[in-house]
Amino acid sequence: MSGPLRIGLFGCGTVGGGVVDILTSRVGYLRSVGVDATVAKVCVRNTKNPALVALLQGHATTVSSNYDDILEDPSINCVIELMGGVTDAKDVVFKAIAKNKHVITANKALIANFMPDITALLTAHPSVRFGYEASVCGGIPIIHTLQSSYTGDGLTEIAGIMNGTTNYMLSKMEKEGASYDAVLKEAQDLGFAEANPSADVDGFDVQAKIAILAKLGFGVHVPPATIPTTGITRIKTVDFEYAKLMGATIKLLGIAKATSADAVAVFVSPVIVPTTNVIGTVHGASNIVNIVSANCINGAYVGQGAGRFPTANSVVNDIVRLGQGVVPSPAFGSTREQVKIENDYAGRFYVRVRLNDGLGIVRSIGTHAEEAGISIDSILQLPITDRNNVDTVVTTDVAKVSQVQRMCDALAKLSFVQEPPLFLPIL
Amino acid sequence: MSGPLRIGLFGCGTVGGGVVDILTSRVGYLRSVGVDATVAKVCVRNTKNPALVALLQGHATTVSSNYDDILEDPSINCVIELMGGVTDAKDVVFKAIAKNKHVITANKALIANFMPDITALLTAHPSVRFGYEASVCGGIPIIHTLQSSYTGDGLTEIAGIMNGTTNYMLSKMEKEGASYDAVLKEAQDLGFAEANPSADVDGFDVQAKIAILAKLGFGVHVPPATIPTTGITRIKTVDFEYAKLMGATIKLLGIAKATSADAVAVFVSPVIVPTTNVIGTVHGASNIVNIVSANCINGAYVGQGAGRFPTANSVVNDIVRLGQGVVPSPAFGSTREQVKIENDYAGRFYVRVRLNDGLGIVRSIGTHAEEAGISIDSILQLPITDRNNVDTVVTTDVAKVSQVQRMCDALAKLSFVQEPPLFLPIL
Ligand SMILES: NC(=O)c1ccc[n+]([C@@H]2O[C@H](COP(=O)([O-])OP(=O)(O)OC[C@H]3O[C@@H](n4cnc5c(N)ncnc54)[C@H](OP(=O)(O)O)[C@@H]3O)[C@@H](O)[C@H]2O)c1
Ligand SMILES: NC(=O)c1ccc[n+]([C@@H]2O[C@H](COP(=O)([O-])OP(=O)(O)OC[C@H]3O[C@@H](n4cnc5c(N)ncnc54)[C@H](OP(=O)(O)O)[C@@H]3O)[C@@H](O)[C@H]2O)c1
Repeated sequence: MSGPLRIGLFGCGTVGGGVVDILTSRVGYLRSVGVDATVAKVCVRNTKNPALVALLQGHATTVSSNYDDILEDPSINCVIELMGGVTDAKDVVFKAIAKNKHVITANKALIANFMPDITALLTAHPSVRFGYEASVCGGIPIIHTLQSSYTGDGLTEIAGIMNGTTNYMLSKMEKEGASYDAVLKEAQDLGFAEANPSADVDGFDVQAKIAILAKLGFGVHVPPATIPTTGITRIKTVDFEYAKLMGATIKLLGIAKATSADAVAVFVSPVIVPTTNVIGTVHGASNIVNIVSANCINGAYVGQGAGRFPTANSVVNDIVRLGQGVVPSPAFGSTREQVKIENDYAGRFYVRVRLNDGLGIVRSIGTHAEEAGISIDSILQLPITDRNNVDTVVTTDVAKVSQVQRMCDALAKLSFVQEPPLFLPIL
Repeated sequence: MSGPLRIGLFGCGTVGGGVVDILTSRVGYLRSVGVDATVAKVCVRNTKNPALVALLQGHATTVSSNYDDILEDPSINCVIELMGGVTDAKDVVFKAIAKNKHVITANKALIANFMPDITALLTAHPSVRFGYEASVCGGIPIIHTLQSSYTGDGLTEIAGIMNGTTNYMLSKMEKEGASYDAVLKEAQDLGFAEANPSADVDGFDVQAKIAILAKLGFGVHVPPATIPTTGITRIKTVDFEYAKLMGATIKLLGIAKATSADAVAVFVSPVIVPTTNVIGTVHGASNIVNIVSANCINGAYVGQGAGRFPTANSVVNDIVRLGQGVVPSPAFGSTREQVKIENDYAGRFYVRVRLNDGLGIVRSIGTHAEEAGISIDSILQLPITDRNNVDTVVTTDVAKVSQVQRMCDALAKLSFVQEPPLFLPIL
């Protein structure tokens, strides 16, 4: 037990409000397991926000919009950052560590980008503990599981559906045969997707999350901006029809996988997932992280990826571990200097070519595959309804990304090919 | 960090051998995360066992068949019990705690039956930590997850496939339309099922496991022998045909679910599980535990339920947490004295009645349902091939177990009913 926690909470919106709710309703139970945690101060921009005022009614919590009211208060021993963003949030987190205050945050972008800096700061302030369970897959305890249940194991792959909005959209496209534009609009109308949906549909949200898991699983920090990232914007209904022919579906995955003993590929892409794979059975806004490893073979963790209470529960888990003095350290797992990033990984691929129907097309695709050193596994062709817009799919034998890219670049130059072919890894 | 661990290992077979393997191959990595663990002594009955001799070749480990060589050695600070059974194993575990040695065990039967006694001993020896991750669902870190990720949450249901042998058998019956006897024989031939399969097929293995999870999730110790337990021996191919009509399958589940704020039902039974439920997607020897809770809504943990390395990995997780000084305590979660066992829970049920076809049967079933206060949801009838052996299925609206039992008892007395009806809860 590390004694009572006096918390300074930065940000008290969806997640922060949930944390206050849970700590209040579970205070007796938390005390019974040795956790004495009080939200002493809250910092937001708008201190008069009616929802906030109502939430804190009857609490002895002080509300302020001055960061120093918390950061400079020596009685506060724990800072919880739930504002988001990488500017003010970074200031707050870095200053809190420098002041020897424990930090808990749900801020995936901050962590993914600044893991090395945070690690250096934590090394200089060894009494500080850093919790970030809520930063990846809201309600799934995947951070703590990687920290505490794979130490004696050797990971070979982490693959996950880590964005509920896009999984909701892809599930709708699969089930209802709806178009990308239609499901995006529906998700926006329902408030699932933002007016500017780029962070979700272009895969940037997943990019930050897989960077965090890759560090924990493989000991290597991958700057998120360097992670090859393909979103779902080019996925069409026809891709689901072809996937179905293959006994599969399409999921946007963040993947980190060993390509050799000391190399790992980290990428974000829509992936052809067999429906017999547990990842293929997770629909709607749910998330899953599947871990392949030497000892455990296969472990899958499924749950809510976001939302007030699932995410706040993860923050509370960090608070509890802090209160009980059982936060694993180092925060981001140990670092393995020898591990290299090798993104030209080998695998099987799905390649969709949109073309005008004509003679010699199969031969032409075959030629370019051969020139790239790729062996074709199958050619799939749904019944043609419009001879000027034919979608043909080729699946490859095991080949490297660079080979598939080379083949697609060559195909894109052909007169009868209408757009750069879309290629997706097959799980 | 709690200093170097000098381990005395009781039992070095499938799991124990795996532990030695992992500790040996990962020694450098474990040291790098602050864990210094050595298997100093091993105790088995047959110290000349060639597999054991080969395993320990080149190790400084002492092998003995005298328990006191470990228990009376003050330099041993951690005992790992991987012998099984509740006689010698109980002696070893209880004496080790009394000698202030940490204990790690995979022994579900021992824990399920003696949780209160072990708790009392641990209270008297507060420096001792007790790890038992491997006792439930081999490679799934479900014990630690319940200990560390649900403290601020409120559970309403734990339901899991926790026996790989029976899940393998049920999956085969479903996919291949094979009979119970045929799949049992096949599982025995493959070494999946024991010559005496009772522990698996009669549900006793799951009974011990759900007792352990019920304590962690609901704070109540349920003596395993008091848990209503139905195995899979009465499940027929026809049940899978009816389940399919319902968009469902059949899984042997251990379930603990809240029936009110302070009451919980704990039971083991084959259950009709919709194929859209994540539990319905787990086939073969895999295990899953699904947790329903106030904050996290739904969390599912899927993985290998047994096997040398998955199970040994869980033992190693306990060793690592011990070495890092982060073992949660109290071992079995806090106790909630006010929680009562209420096994007469309410739910929807599947009732299969085997009868000779004739007039007035539907009316007769309807009458007995009405007398038990049960409202029938549907009557299902597959095409009849043998008028003397007709399986008719009734599904009920929400009713209590006792009501369904009453209806079945009454039906069993009717001249045209051939055997006591089989009833299964619907998830
Ligand atoms: N929502 C989820 O399901 C979810 C899931 C996983 C992770 N997260 C992460 O959790 C964090 C919080 O998300 P949220 O959904 O709770 O956001 P939110 O509902 O928008 O709440 C943000 C809170 O922070 C305050 N705030 C924002 N910028 C601030 C600044 N510069 N200075 C002071 N206060 C500031 C806001 O109040 P004022 O506007 O009054 O300042 C508000 O109280 C983010 O990092 C997010 O990525 C959220
Ligand atoms: N196997 C799995 O996948 C699995 C999964 C989860 C949990 N578990 C649990 O793990 C434990 C061990 O299982 P296991 O599969 O490893 O068993 P196992 O392969 O039969 O090994 C048992 C070991 O214990 C020794 N032993 C047995 N009784 C003993 C006694 N009275 N005194 C001294 N040594 C004794 C045996 O050696 P001698 O015969 O030479 O004495 C052998 O080394 C059991 O509690 C089991 O329920 C196993």
